[in-house]
Amino acid sequence: MVNGNQPLRIATGTARAFEVHKGQMAEIVTPEGPQVADTWAFALPDLDEFLSTEHTRSCLDRLTPGVGEAFYSNRRRPILTIVEDTSPGCHDLLLSACDVGRYTLLGHQGYHANCIDNLDSALREMGLAAPETPSPVNVFEKVSIDADGKLHIEPPLAKPGESLTLRAEMDLVLVVSACPMDIVLTNGSDRRPKPIDVSIVSANESTGSSVNTTMNS
Amino acid sequence: MVNGNQPLRIATGTARAFEVHKGQMAEIVTPEGPQVADTWAFALPDLDEFLSTEHTRSCLDRLTPGVGEAFYSNRRRPILTIVEDTSPGCHDLLLSACDVGRYTLLGHQGYHANCIDNLDSALREMGLAAPETPSPVNVFEKVSIDADGKLHIEPPLAKPGESLTLRAEMDLVLVVSACPMDIVLTNGSDRRPKPIDVSIVSANESTGSSVNTTMNS
Repeated sequence: MVNGNQPLRIATGTARAFEVHKGQMAEIVTPEGPQVADTWAFALPDLDEFLSTEHTRSCLDRLTPGVGEAFYSNRRRPILTIVEDTSPGCHDLLLSACDVGRYTLLGHQGYHANCIDNLDSALREMGLAAPETPSPVNVFEKVSIDADGKLHIEPPLAKPGESLTLRAEMDLVLVVSACPMDIVLTNGSDRRPKPIDVSIVSANESTGSSVNTTMNS
Repeated sequence: MVNGNQPLRIATGTARAFEVHKGQMAEIVTPEGPQVADTWAFALPDLDEFLSTEHTRSCLDRLTPGVGEAFYSNRRRPILTIVEDTSPGCHDLLLSACDVGRYTLLGHQGYHANCIDNLDSALREMGLAAPETPSPVNVFEKVSIDADGKLHIEPPLAKPGESLTLRAEMDLVLVVSACPMDIVLTNGSDRRPKPIDVSIVSANESTGSSVNTTMNS
């Protein structure tokens, strides 16, 4: 869907923030296969409005939006619409982002890179701060639900080069973190965190333009 | 479980906040049957720590805790433990609290009482303000999940007098809203909002009394 521009590589275990204008599209690609991209969106200039997983579920009466459906903000407005999904369509809206406490509970000693600190630092690089810490959209994460409500994190099904493409329904800042999890199966059966690529293009650039917008962010 | 003290009646469509000390128990009763109690908990004195549905799911690897399990805070610490549940055990952690926008989307014209405004006003009566608006625990709410991820709000199964009893694992303010929803099936097939009763007692008050607290409300 999003062609003609150079994607920005998000290095393994780090995050980047992108200014995305209404109508522009963000393509989130997993270049090396099974890897989760924790994703947040905050409206600009008023960051008090942001993508909310619980409002998305309430507005859609679904666990996860499909192609043509939107993620909703905490003000129940569409904020990002899924315009294309070349992956198997497994994305998690149930689990919190990893933080230092998550790794400590998993037995890790000392500091561990994590998506919450990544969110904060990516916004800080743009001179922004999140007014709240919303639950993320865990792009490419596969979480199965048992009949008794038990949750199982399984290796992502996404293959190298598969992508999720989102259209911004308002001006916003998009934050994408290449999740650094290396203990449980979040990033594959090899437990190896990998990079994520992101391209931001305008709708009229989505066929053929060579303008590299992501490098200016 | 919780005997010997007078419950507080939360009038239909309103909310109340309760200071609950570590070790005390809160019994949430539905005196008239199918009715949802939107419930939040914020640590005292630092309200920046609060009950988080997404951290609860992540810490337990479950959609909803059962008896003997805890709800977790956004710092991954147990904040409230379920010590008894005389209801069928259906409680929702997926859906956002109702707000004015929810009723507008459902076709209601003008202002409608809602759990978000109830949360704010209940805290304000205690001189407090929520630093964030966490997703609520919708006590007694029945939400079924289809095989394709579709969510269905169904009438609560709770019968008159059934209850959920929670033990505070830290000092906290508990907010309980008797959900005013009268359009969809949240509060029963009659779509009639009803009151909720709440009792707060210390652990050493919870054995031996024969007073039937729920009948006094």
